[in-house]
Amino acid sequence: MKVRIDVMLKNGVLDPQGKAIGHALTTLGFKGVGEVRVGKSVVVEIEETDPAKATQAAEEMAKKILANLVIEDFRVTVL
Amino acid sequence: MKVRIDVMLKNGVLDPQGKAIGHALTTLGFKGVGEVRVGKSVVVEIEETDPAKATQAAEEMAKKILANLVIEDFRVTVL
Repeated sequence: MKVRIDVMLKNGVLDPQGKAIGHALTTLGFKGVGEVRVGKSVVVEIEETDPAKATQAAEEMAKKILANLVIEDFRVTVL
Repeated sequence: MKVRIDVMLKNGVLDPQGKAIGHALTTLGFKGVGEVRVGKSVVVEIEETDPAKATQAAEEMAKKILANLVIEDFRVTVL
């Protein structure tokens, strides 16, 4: 079973990478580009058939190494 | 309107970052961890009310600067 863990900076935390992409898009001619925020997504294959257990394992992974909970939020999706 | 652009390495392209995370998870004691792949997600605020047009703009952004289509795939989601 595959789960996806999306990690994004919390609202209010400065995102210089997003800012840079926003500037680049505007420079390239895209109109009406507002805030841009960048996150990472990690897709993990887990040997587990129960979606609830897979979600729980993915949440633990996120808390332990994938997300820095001081500045980042995460969300788990079963694929 | 917000759109999310998910960029992932294509299947078959080596993902050393994913491999490193997989090793770290196993070392930390997570059981049954298989392949791990890492991508990025970019959330862009666009001044646009039509979801179809927002999607089209996001696809252009992905093709122009966000994704390297030789080794990466992308997917656009309207939020």
